[in-house]
Amino acid sequence: MISDKMQIQVKNSSVIRAMFEEGKKLAEVYGAENVYDFSLGNPSVDTPEDVKKAILEILDTIDSAGIHGYMNNSGYEEVRDAIAKSINEKYATAFNHENIIMTVGAAGGLNVIFKTLLNPGDEVITFAPFFGEYRNYVANYEGVLVIVPANTTDFQPNLAAFSEQITPRTKAVIINSPNNPTGVVYSEETIIKLAHIMREKQKEFGIAIYLISDEPYRELAYDNIDVPYLTKYYENTIIGYSFSKSLSLPGERIGYLVIPNEVADSEDVKAAANIATRILGFVNAPSLFQRVIARCLNAKVEVAAYNQNRELLYNALTSFGYECIKPQGAFYLFVKTPIADDIEFCSLAKQKNILVVPGSSFGCPGYIRIAYCVAYKTIENALPGFKTLIAELS
Amino acid sequence: MISDKMQIQVKNSSVIRAMFEEGKKLAEVYGAENVYDFSLGNPSVDTPEDVKKAILEILDTIDSAGIHGYMNNSGYEEVRDAIAKSINEKYATAFNHENIIMTVGAAGGLNVIFKTLLNPGDEVITFAPFFGEYRNYVANYEGVLVIVPANTTDFQPNLAAFSEQITPRTKAVIINSPNNPTGVVYSEETIIKLAHIMREKQKEFGIAIYLISDEPYRELAYDNIDVPYLTKYYENTIIGYSFSKSLSLPGERIGYLVIPNEVADSEDVKAAANIATRILGFVNAPSLFQRVIARCLNAKVEVAAYNQNRELLYNALTSFGYECIKPQGAFYLFVKTPIADDIEFCSLAKQKNILVVPGSSFGCPGYIRIAYCVAYKTIENALPGFKTLIAELS
Repeated sequence: MISDKMQIQVKNSSVIRAMFEEGKKLAEVYGAENVYDFSLGNPSVDTPEDVKKAILEILDTIDSAGIHGYMNNSGYEEVRDAIAKSINEKYATAFNHENIIMTVGAAGGLNVIFKTLLNPGDEVITFAPFFGEYRNYVANYEGVLVIVPANTTDFQPNLAAFSEQITPRTKAVIINSPNNPTGVVYSEETIIKLAHIMREKQKEFGIAIYLISDEPYRELAYDNIDVPYLTKYYENTIIGYSFSKSLSLPGERIGYLVIPNEVADSEDVKAAANIATRILGFVNAPSLFQRVIARCLNAKVEVAAYNQNRELLYNALTSFGYECIKPQGAFYLFVKTPIADDIEFCSLAKQKNILVVPGSSFGCPGYIRIAYCVAYKTIENALPGFKTLIAELS
Repeated sequence: MISDKMQIQVKNSSVIRAMFEEGKKLAEVYGAENVYDFSLGNPSVDTPEDVKKAILEILDTIDSAGIHGYMNNSGYEEVRDAIAKSINEKYATAFNHENIIMTVGAAGGLNVIFKTLLNPGDEVITFAPFFGEYRNYVANYEGVLVIVPANTTDFQPNLAAFSEQITPRTKAVIINSPNNPTGVVYSEETIIKLAHIMREKQKEFGIAIYLISDEPYRELAYDNIDVPYLTKYYENTIIGYSFSKSLSLPGERIGYLVIPNEVADSEDVKAAANIATRILGFVNAPSLFQRVIARCLNAKVEVAAYNQNRELLYNALTSFGYECIKPQGAFYLFVKTPIADDIEFCSLAKQKNILVVPGSSFGCPGYIRIAYCVAYKTIENALPGFKTLIAELS
């Protein structure tokens, strides 16, 4: 009796659920501390103390209607102004509250913007490897996700292939940097070239192509690397941000969209995104946490802890003979599997009590994603298994 | 550049925005205290003190990952168990956590269930007058909303018309009791007849028809009236609940779906609703407030305050000569307009600084909705305007 589309979803997800159940069984048999779960992007670093302070301050100083009541579907004006001001200070932009729409996390924001933009059949281009949920977010609005094959040399986007895949049906391009699953940060050089190609294609086809920048990992960058702010490179850029990782708040569902005045039909896009927030059933981003994040715009989780994990895991795995790019951001390592079949490799890893996700899930077979947002100890304890695994396969 | 569907939405909403802007202008000219805004369903009664206590207790006793982290897309198991237990105690049902899916408010829950059930062209029946957003929620999934004309005698559903409007394409029926906009509670007699008709039609067409009960106003009922718990009357019932009104938390977006084991293809419906929560971009209901409401299942706003408003407004308006059913629940009065054109009446009311919503917005012209979730004083001050208005029109 469920819809045809959801029947397919339920069928596919039962495979994942089976994997999850197997993981639970492993934990029962060997003890949870002896199962090394690198499969989830659930932040392991504590939420900054500022968040708790902000909650207490809000509860003490604002009345309940002002904390828990409805507001404009786009969010509190003062919260949106605070965010705009913070972005302006960091990136020398010139936004105000009208450019900001508060969203139910980045996932909510991406659904709002795709609902806003897509007619059935419109194409959205992304670069492999990519966050698998883009498939669903685009399909929700009858769009078509077009996948540019991976550039496995350095995992910067394959721009030559990209250029050829843009058509008059291309409505948007979605990128994610720092990237899930590779941890790679798209360089300024890449962004400049990408913007140039998109501008040329806009002219060639007489259309507007939106660049959607999905940025939940912006604050998780290492070695002082610069993560370019894309509205400065390409006029039709819309940004989707989330506090899930920067403040370790994934369960609270709080983020925002930036819709600059420079984007094509900006007034319509802003008005439609406000309405889409309502009619998709989000109604508004959670109200208490809107006020919380406005008080925590300069707070940040202990990125150093993720960096320690990165160094340990990257150095150990490469010393064992694994091939992988050193990630510059996020909390993922994207490792080439010693055998071609990444799904088979995940099964073999499970026999060492190591849970990882096949690259196929991100449109890039022959690799695995290791989420290192776990305890340092978990990585230490898993290393012998990784070592034995590659030795056995060589 | 926005999608065709959103272009229509933006165009329609500009009319509402114009009304809103006019209201703001009135407030500037006459002072906010002299403008009587009865247009919004934003709770005016304070959030119970238990909510604040629960937040403080959670912050003091659970670590940040346990408060703000990801969990199963359906929500925390212990929260869902607590809700199931509470329902079982109140209504002698037999649910457990597997029957409960935490949602981003009732609006989020309805979108999840329509995404779960509807194929393009599937029909969803509702009874006029109805919450206007049902149009959007059904259209989001290419469903067709079929509207049963109002029974303006007592605003119980028009069951004779209903019976004729069920077809082999009918996938669901959505009802809302206590009702927005009438405040009417559908009686047990109504529910028994409704269930009988639906059972007969299921047999006749060899299909399953789901009854979706949208219940944000369940706890707002007056005069000790009984609000029947629908899973006990009809096996294919799915309930959408929200804490927005019962705890004055509309901005926090917290509610749940109840999917009983008795519904057709129950396992598939539960699995698909879990996935729909994820792929629509909700991901999960806000995590802190899941734990908060689990600690506040016996808390309730001061319903007596709404009741005072109801008595004052109902008694005054009927004494002035307005015709209206005395509402038994929610915080709305649905009043027959002294002239046939309800939109014109709203304009005339605005000249008395009174803002109300035309019945046309709820599929029932010739009426207005007065939301009395406002300060008692606001009602007192608005009464002379209502009195003059009907005198001038007689």
